[in-house]
Amino acid sequence: MTRFRYLSFLTDYGLEDGFVAVCHGVGARIAPHADIIDVTHLVPRGDVRRGAALLAQTVPYLPPAVHVAVVDPGVGTARRGVAVAAGDSVFIGPDNGLLSWAVTAAGGATRAFSLTNRELWLSQVTPTFHGRDIFMPVAAHLAADAELTEAGTEIDVGGLVTLPPPERVVRDFTAAGEVLTVDRFGNVQLTVTAADAAEIGVKPGGTVLVHFGHRQLMLPYRDTFGAVATGELVTYIDSAGLVSIAVNGGNAAQKLGLPPGARVAITAIPQIINA
Amino acid sequence: MTRFRYLSFLTDYGLEDGFVAVCHGVGARIAPHADIIDVTHLVPRGDVRRGAALLAQTVPYLPPAVHVAVVDPGVGTARRGVAVAAGDSVFIGPDNGLLSWAVTAAGGATRAFSLTNRELWLSQVTPTFHGRDIFMPVAAHLAADAELTEAGTEIDVGGLVTLPPPERVVRDFTAAGEVLTVDRFGNVQLTVTAADAAEIGVKPGGTVLVHFGHRQLMLPYRDTFGAVATGELVTYIDSAGLVSIAVNGGNAAQKLGLPPGARVAITAIPQIINA
Amino acid sequence: MTRFRYLSFLTDYGLEDGFVAVCHGVGARIAPHADIIDVTHLVPRGDVRRGAALLAQTVPYLPPAVHVAVVDPGVGTARRGVAVAAGDSVFIGPDNGLLSWAVTAAGGATRAFSLTNRELWLSQVTPTFHGRDIFMPVAAHLAADAELTEAGTEIDVGGLVTLPPPERVVRDFTAAGEVLTVDRFGNVQLTVTAADAAEIGVKPGGTVLVHFGHRQLMLPYRDTFGAVATGELVTYIDSAGLVSIAVNGGNAAQKLGLPPGARVAITAIPQIINA
Repeated sequence: MTRFRYLSFLTDYGLEDGFVAVCHGVGARIAPHADIIDVTHLVPRGDVRRGAALLAQTVPYLPPAVHVAVVDPGVGTARRGVAVAAGDSVFIGPDNGLLSWAVTAAGGATRAFSLTNRELWLSQVTPTFHGRDIFMPVAAHLAADAELTEAGTEIDVGGLVTLPPPERVVRDFTAAGEVLTVDRFGNVQLTVTAADAAEIGVKPGGTVLVHFGHRQLMLPYRDTFGAVATGELVTYIDSAGLVSIAVNGGNAAQKLGLPPGARVAITAIPQIINA
Repeated sequence: MTRFRYLSFLTDYGLEDGFVAVCHGVGARIAPHADIIDVTHLVPRGDVRRGAALLAQTVPYLPPAVHVAVVDPGVGTARRGVAVAAGDSVFIGPDNGLLSWAVTAAGGATRAFSLTNRELWLSQVTPTFHGRDIFMPVAAHLAADAELTEAGTEIDVGGLVTLPPPERVVRDFTAAGEVLTVDRFGNVQLTVTAADAAEIGVKPGGTVLVHFGHRQLMLPYRDTFGAVATGELVTYIDSAGLVSIAVNGGNAAQKLGLPPGARVAITAIPQIINA
Repeated sequence: MTRFRYLSFLTDYGLEDGFVAVCHGVGARIAPHADIIDVTHLVPRGDVRRGAALLAQTVPYLPPAVHVAVVDPGVGTARRGVAVAAGDSVFIGPDNGLLSWAVTAAGGATRAFSLTNRELWLSQVTPTFHGRDIFMPVAAHLAADAELTEAGTEIDVGGLVTLPPPERVVRDFTAAGEVLTVDRFGNVQLTVTAADAAEIGVKPGGTVLVHFGHRQLMLPYRDTFGAVATGELVTYIDSAGLVSIAVNGGNAAQKLGLPPGARVAITAIPQIINA
């Protein structure tokens, strides 16, 4: 019997309506033993890519859980709902790519099911609120008493919709990618990884040349944004292991005009004297 | 002995101060066995009607609970606090109509008590924070160890303050009402029900004439907003069973200038060919 | 063995990213028995003073807990992390003054430890996310299985960084202080206490002269803002026991241009007839 102590829950429902609470209530009724960890409900409306990035960066720190994620601009249309087993968790949501990066981060899908078993749904299903009517009840049943195989028809894991992985290319002394996310602080997280940075020879204490649009900036590369003076730009490896650009005490995304998706490249600047 | 596993909590306290946490703490001290489900704390300040609509649409999906709701512009004045039994739950808050629609949705008040028993309050009561000092402690005591009858003086359920029910009139082929709520997505929820729409002959796949202000719009009536192209207006039955107007991927309230309270009517347009 | 049923959690992480959830996950993995009460995560970025005020006003209503607070503009630099025992709780966070007012409110620090025991941290520590990598794991271990003395090197409680206490001076018939906080409603909370107000002879039902900048206003002093007409200014003792200025149904901070830190004084106006 599949049983989980935890559910996690990520949506673009916002916090000013009752949508999140309604889903919590549905979960509590079906799986009163389970705790729900809210990942965030402030994904920008319909931004599947942002939801996917948030989920993939959060799940590795959560306990084994049924992870419910709903950023679902196609709700009520032909897109199917799925339950995907990966690592020690199950991921539930629309099959629109939202789950794909987190599934990869969890080790890849081992089995997948189309949510076709109406016995695990609420008795009344509306076309616009599958989070309440399908995804959360199925997740709660899986946490409480149902086998994953009861979720519906098994499907080929190779047929799941996946988002293209974040773009990045490493060549010679340059790592090129794009802005993956901008956080509350305006810190600009690139798709370029710590390993990419090491490969092109960037070292903490050194300097990098950052290219974007028609601009080039020489920026310090440090362990943390607190290593530069207030108001100064800095590059560093963020807590998700990705190269990021920040302004210490300020908002780098605003200052540089770098929204998610903007193309950015970094080049290592050789140092004359190397301690 | 009355005992509840769950409390629910709706306020206009916002999330940037410590008000909600303080109430959670008070609840945890008195009823450590209970879980608190936050409905929302972003009700627009003092908007009793919006709070009432949110509570009524959320509570049917929550487990049996002591539901605490505080949107209370008259805190510290003569308005009384009440505990109202309805269905399998108890509702606690100011007697200003906030609870009334949810109580009706739960089957109507069976008993009601004015919160006059100071033994269930915090020992110090301030005139401006009855959520912390009265409502939450009474609710937690009812969840933990107190009988409903201990809450205070029993009052006539007919004497409870009620909000006028949302206005709607069905006549001939027109259903007239008002905007009940606008959600995060800008979807415009009318007071007109799915049953009203059926009564005037509106059918999914058909067309409705929407009247408001001096405008008339012919809009498709579909199962879901995803059934029309991105950017298009659509009418549909929302997840609460009410006729709503949306822009697929956009904000209908902004586009049409329809705030809560605006008067809107819909008329069925007969179809020449009906599949 | 030190064990706590509750953790509390205050940060400036915001709610739109996964930072808070990641910390909840870390806590759940280490201390699955514990409940986490979120104080707020909307402290203005890096505003240590605001975080300190919120924590100090909230903690007295929470159950005994390990209180984790992270407003940490110096993350990754030389500032140390600390665990401080005070009252029946433990406070964990950066040693930058954030904890100091809450520790004082809890009765003062009895023991303090620098967080140097890496066995209680996550195995990988990044320079920019000590909430996830150090503070929450240490707190969860203290809640679950570790003694406070295991947190690290004991330090002199006199050496903890403290914020200067909120300024206030009472002289003759005037109490002078500053704006401590402005809440969601725009209510202006002064550092002047109820006791200060009593000392200078202010009585509910009376009138006070409020001085700030070059302005002087005669305002009613009442039990609650609901005691004056909608739109009227009023002074009163707020739910934290501090003199505050509100507009009934409006925003006093905006109306008066009074941000946190602004200097304000009040003088009692003698009444000709005193009931």
